[in-house]
Amino acid sequence: MIRKTTQLKQLLHSSQLEFLMEAHNGLSAKIVEETGFSGIWGSGLSISAANGVRDNNEMSWTQVLDTVEYMSDATTIPILLDADTGFGNFNNVRRLVRKLEQVNVAGLCIEDKLFPKTNSFINGEQQPLADPIEFAGKIKAAKDTQQDPDFCVVARVEALIAGWSMSEALQRASIYHEAGADAILIHSKAATPNQILGFKSEWQDTCPVIIVPTMYHSTPTSVFRESNFSVAIWANHLLRTAITAMQQAAAKIHSEESIAGIEQQIVPIMEVFRLQDAAELQSAEKTYLPVPAEPVAEIVR
Amino acid sequence: MIRKTTQLKQLLHSSQLEFLMEAHNGLSAKIVEETGFSGIWGSGLSISAANGVRDNNEMSWTQVLDTVEYMSDATTIPILLDADTGFGNFNNVRRLVRKLEQVNVAGLCIEDKLFPKTNSFINGEQQPLADPIEFAGKIKAAKDTQQDPDFCVVARVEALIAGWSMSEALQRASIYHEAGADAILIHSKAATPNQILGFKSEWQDTCPVIIVPTMYHSTPTSVFRESNFSVAIWANHLLRTAITAMQQAAAKIHSEESIAGIEQQIVPIMEVFRLQDAAELQSAEKTYLPVPAEPVAEIVR
Amino acid sequence: MIRKTTQLKQLLHSSQLEFLMEAHNGLSAKIVEETGFSGIWGSGLSISAANGVRDNNEMSWTQVLDTVEYMSDATTIPILLDADTGFGNFNNVRRLVRKLEQVNVAGLCIEDKLFPKTNSFINGEQQPLADPIEFAGKIKAAKDTQQDPDFCVVARVEALIAGWSMSEALQRASIYHEAGADAILIHSKAATPNQILGFKSEWQDTCPVIIVPTMYHSTPTSVFRESNFSVAIWANHLLRTAITAMQQAAAKIHSEESIAGIEQQIVPIMEVFRLQDAAELQSAEKTYLPVPAEPVAEIVR
Amino acid sequence: MIRKTTQLKQLLHSSQLEFLMEAHNGLSAKIVEETGFSGIWGSGLSISAANGVRDNNEMSWTQVLDTVEYMSDATTIPILLDADTGFGNFNNVRRLVRKLEQVNVAGLCIEDKLFPKTNSFINGEQQPLADPIEFAGKIKAAKDTQQDPDFCVVARVEALIAGWSMSEALQRASIYHEAGADAILIHSKAATPNQILGFKSEWQDTCPVIIVPTMYHSTPTSVFRESNFSVAIWANHLLRTAITAMQQAAAKIHSEESIAGIEQQIVPIMEVFRLQDAAELQSAEKTYLPVPAEPVAEIVR
Repeated sequence: MIRKTTQLKQLLHSSQLEFLMEAHNGLSAKIVEETGFSGIWGSGLSISAANGVRDNNEMSWTQVLDTVEYMSDATTIPILLDADTGFGNFNNVRRLVRKLEQVNVAGLCIEDKLFPKTNSFINGEQQPLADPIEFAGKIKAAKDTQQDPDFCVVARVEALIAGWSMSEALQRASIYHEAGADAILIHSKAATPNQILGFKSEWQDTCPVIIVPTMYHSTPTSVFRESNFSVAIWANHLLRTAITAMQQAAAKIHSEESIAGIEQQIVPIMEVFRLQDAAELQSAEKTYLPVPAEPVAEIVR
Repeated sequence: MIRKTTQLKQLLHSSQLEFLMEAHNGLSAKIVEETGFSGIWGSGLSISAANGVRDNNEMSWTQVLDTVEYMSDATTIPILLDADTGFGNFNNVRRLVRKLEQVNVAGLCIEDKLFPKTNSFINGEQQPLADPIEFAGKIKAAKDTQQDPDFCVVARVEALIAGWSMSEALQRASIYHEAGADAILIHSKAATPNQILGFKSEWQDTCPVIIVPTMYHSTPTSVFRESNFSVAIWANHLLRTAITAMQQAAAKIHSEESIAGIEQQIVPIMEVFRLQDAAELQSAEKTYLPVPAEPVAEIVR
Repeated sequence: MIRKTTQLKQLLHSSQLEFLMEAHNGLSAKIVEETGFSGIWGSGLSISAANGVRDNNEMSWTQVLDTVEYMSDATTIPILLDADTGFGNFNNVRRLVRKLEQVNVAGLCIEDKLFPKTNSFINGEQQPLADPIEFAGKIKAAKDTQQDPDFCVVARVEALIAGWSMSEALQRASIYHEAGADAILIHSKAATPNQILGFKSEWQDTCPVIIVPTMYHSTPTSVFRESNFSVAIWANHLLRTAITAMQQAAAKIHSEESIAGIEQQIVPIMEVFRLQDAAELQSAEKTYLPVPAEPVAEIVR
Repeated sequence: MIRKTTQLKQLLHSSQLEFLMEAHNGLSAKIVEETGFSGIWGSGLSISAANGVRDNNEMSWTQVLDTVEYMSDATTIPILLDADTGFGNFNNVRRLVRKLEQVNVAGLCIEDKLFPKTNSFINGEQQPLADPIEFAGKIKAAKDTQQDPDFCVVARVEALIAGWSMSEALQRASIYHEAGADAILIHSKAATPNQILGFKSEWQDTCPVIIVPTMYHSTPTSVFRESNFSVAIWANHLLRTAITAMQQAAAKIHSEESIAGIEQQIVPIMEVFRLQDAAELQSAEKTYLPVPAEPVAEIVR
């Protein structure tokens, strides 16, 4: 079994475009793995939304950790955690890295915004960015803290989101790369890939570059391949499809006042048990439990 | 605003058949409320499955509490929590009731099985039941502990699941009712409603009776109405529809290596923000944040 | 039973000098109550130190909440929680207030420093302070969020710690008071009470003023009384006495390789059970448990 | 650096009597290490008492885990966790072992009582014991689950506490040893060492034997050495000394209405910072933080 960290590092450095699929809890993480993806994006937006709170650090960092721990326990492929700004300064990042390694999360991505953060797609251009030197200190602290040499630290550059220049984005990326970042995530909310292509043509292959095509979703994947991006993240689509399905199912059950009409459209309950690996427990019971005694007699005879 | 506990109590005693819809996290709970349901079933199976673990008390009771707290925070309709066996003895139930009241959960349902439990649909007939007198002590302890007079304690009778007689089920229900249970949940895994109808015809209207038609899903709801059941619980259908949707979406994205094909089939990202009530935060920022200072200058000029 | 919030509010407005005694876990909180104190200071320094981490927001805010929840559950007198900077911005403060009210904490104290904070006695003069308008927004947000009208929000002014002028301290106090603070905590690390006396002579009785005499510990309490301070907080002394005692006991046991020598110097184990109120559980077992069945037979005969 | 698990295993098999000292939070754990002890007993009684709850599984198993995680983070010597009955059946034990290994706890001790447990010194003789075959299944499950070969599983035999015969105790110990237990903890609440000596003279050196001399505290340690016990646990003495000290200090401060009288009797506040290793953070700030900008100007001039 290749360590999760090593799997992620190999993804970053593979010669082909790789994909990370968003998950937001243990169940969706398991579905990502079963589908055949080689890695999971632990999305901050999705995790907060699934828990019913906002993507503004309303969850504490240990609550985020609790969720990603379930995700990691349920899967054998690597998770890259969207760790927002690192939830504080370099010292908070150090603690976070130690805790992520303990629960076998393969890497974290931190972004150069200020705590508490706001989602990049909400008034992104009004959001202040972090001092790049201070942010580089977080990256260096993360790298110095990790015990597994293959744990990955990704630096997310928000300059284009915030409406700053390409030069700013490139210079920040350089600073973060020199501080030790294993990859740069260049974020853009443009509807076309022009920004990220522009960045990549300047950045070249200095280090792996990750993209998140949420807003430029109609761009053919071949475009990303041709520009030699390392990883594309499908960042929130399992959450959004679950919302769509649950809203429709809830509406149908509510209006029909019955589950009869939906039974054939959804997985049987046995599929839930399969996803939970109920069979392993039944098998283990044979190994570890004594032969059951006589059942308790009924109280009524 | 009517208290959540009072809302649940009124549901139990309303003159018509009421419905509780399953939810398993803050997001699904919010969807249940927005759809128009008047109450939420905090399903033990769904909560464990969503977190990627089994329905065998693999989550600690405080981890269950953490999940239901998010659900309660995200909604204004009452939640009835599926609290398995109460996670221990009467003393654990007392602590649980105190903590559920603190996070504004309206009631709990405990079942007369042994800790750690197994899902009722997995080898149910081999599962030992609790001593009914010991179980009645849990109910009494819960009722004596609650501070809100409308907090609801539901006793779930597993006798029919375990393959015992109708007399056993009825006698247990009587013992639990006398111990203070606000309602009886009579559980059955038969494909027809014969068991629950048989129970109800004997039980009459001694106290409200709740049913979970997961296995007898094709039974017309009118049958439940005619027998004067109090509440029908749609116990796991949002989870199952989310699984179906996420498996299909993940497979499509994986095979197409693109999100272009799914974008129109799922809610837009703005719907995620709406469900999180991002607008309220933007409004609050105007109230509580100072006028932003000049943005930090770019480091590149 | 007077609500804890009301008890705290009454302390703030009582005509005599009141005292809050530090606690850092459920046990020390119970000891504070049993000793006769009328309120508890949930010290950030003590809570972090007891858990073995630094007073620099190494614990997440929900981990702090977990600790103060145990403290609140174990006591009936009010707790004023040292909530550092509020653990983020006004929105984090709103969530914190909701959660503190749920676990029956009577009030919180926030300080006008930046997250993550550093203890005021470590290089305090180098620590940047918060923008007072931004900080006032936190106070207003807390007051607007609380559901219990007697929940108390205390604003801690760090200007003197940071080496700023008395005018700065007074102007900040005014801004916070106008924003709704129920009391001002004027902090000083001077060895004499001159700073806090100077503040009080200017502030007069605009609103209750709280002091923390950790560094000016030799000042007679009569001095605080004469200046009509509202509350004096003994901020870390149970922690420090526990450290002293544990270091000495551990050293003695280690060198003697025996507990014989210490047995008479420490409370008997029955005192531990008394503090845990084991008797109540034994009594409750008689109410809620069935008469025990015959014990299981020995396997050896 | 020798792994904590290996350190514990070596303690169990060392040729001399070794000692584990109780701790109940990160702070006391650190004090144990600084004193020179080679291992820590994570006492269930102490941990529950420190948190203000009873030793009856009122804390969930994840809450216990949260506490022992702080303890492990604060220390480099091994912790043997008192894990009560394992908090459920063999499956709960499997999860527990995985989680303990993640937070670098070196071993766990489980006892053959029923969940939820009662402290052995409270009506011990009335407590039912576990089916020894079922309990052996827990031990086997723990051993099969651990990933680190040196993780230690200790089986605690409660037969003598429960008033059963020496033969019962010995037969249970044999069953647990055969199931894979790394050591036997033979518990006794007699005021003399007769019971544990009797056990040891029959058991011989089949495997390491651990004792807890809380009740037979006046027995000279030489007696334990002569009988070749492996480890003696000083099980609750730091908690008890902390209680004594805090009760006395609180009473003194309360009656004197001043901290002046206690200042010289307790460690200075700088000792708290030293125990927290504040110096490391100050040093790290020099490495990871940019040179601080000009401080914010005062608002008052």
